[in-house]
Amino acid sequence: MRGAVSWTDREVELLTITLDLLRQHGYDRLSVEAVAVQAKASKSTVYRRWPTKADLVLAAFIEGTRVSAVPPRTGSLRGDLLAMGAGVCNHAREHGATMRAVLNEMSHNPRLSEAMQKEFVHQRKLVIEEVLAEAIERGEIDAPIDDEIFDLMPGYLVFRSLISGRAPTQETVRILVDQVLLPSLGFTGQS
Amino acid sequence: MRGAVSWTDREVELLTITLDLLRQHGYDRLSVEAVAVQAKASKSTVYRRWPTKADLVLAAFIEGTRVSAVPPRTGSLRGDLLAMGAGVCNHAREHGATMRAVLNEMSHNPRLSEAMQKEFVHQRKLVIEEVLAEAIERGEIDAPIDDEIFDLMPGYLVFRSLISGRAPTQETVRILVDQVLLPSLGFTGQS
Repeated sequence: MRGAVSWTDREVELLTITLDLLRQHGYDRLSVEAVAVQAKASKSTVYRRWPTKADLVLAAFIEGTRVSAVPPRTGSLRGDLLAMGAGVCNHAREHGATMRAVLNEMSHNPRLSEAMQKEFVHQRKLVIEEVLAEAIERGEIDAPIDDEIFDLMPGYLVFRSLISGRAPTQETVRILVDQVLLPSLGFTGQS
Repeated sequence: MRGAVSWTDREVELLTITLDLLRQHGYDRLSVEAVAVQAKASKSTVYRRWPTKADLVLAAFIEGTRVSAVPPRTGSLRGDLLAMGAGVCNHAREHGATMRAVLNEMSHNPRLSEAMQKEFVHQRKLVIEEVLAEAIERGEIDAPIDDEIFDLMPGYLVFRSLISGRAPTQETVRILVDQVLLPSLGFTGQS
């Protein structure tokens, strides 16, 4: 992917362990030491690559969502939107604590916030633009979603995952796609 | 309002002080003691009414958003949606730290989460239902938004407020209303 980060196998291993520990213990109780112990690495090895816990968690977040860094290419706009929505739901379910932690850290950590913009938000914007450009090429729609609200679907689904008891489901995504996104994009239903 | 909480003048005063202190210092550095000192109240007075800091902050949040607990009644669906969107943006700008804190606390505090559902989410759902019912009565639309995604606009705007550098503006709301919500509701443009 254009501009995406790539990690070594060893780094991926450390990030996978970080995600596991986050899932088990949450952000507050995660320690860089525990990650190092489980990976049989020294703490300084981990810190050399990710100077703070926040950096480590952001990297783990990006690794955990890597599957959504490329367009799903199902062959139709509806299929692509449903697949992307399902991806956000899965990620939110598996990595809810990580997501919450990243959002929280971002609010008082400008450097992390900038990294998140560059390494995550911008990547996802490219994916959405690509999905819509392909739909325009196929003649399914005439114009993309307004730039200002390009992240309407993932944003709403993330919001829903933050509210306990309102975790988004496949049905949420289907209704959002069929009753809101496709009509607002002027989807003709023909490909 | 149906089912809304009502507070005494003294309680409103305590909640206003809480909101001020939250805005100045954020959730983590807010202490119930500081609220009591500034209100010239005893700590036990505050604790008697709100047993934990989380309860106090939730109450302050609800107080701070009271203006949005009634339909705006501008006379048109478009006007109502724009007004409600602007309300969410204003609130998010003024009380971002409180909102973030409430969302965060909710994730590991089931009692708070339930209170939030009952005293906030449910109230806002009634307001949205009322706005859409009035639009149907005026003949502006035929059917309301699907129940599953009734909070699409506030949810997305809240998400945007959580991402630094992406705070929603009047323009965000206008695009969301004109290019997404109204078309998806089958708005005819006639009232």
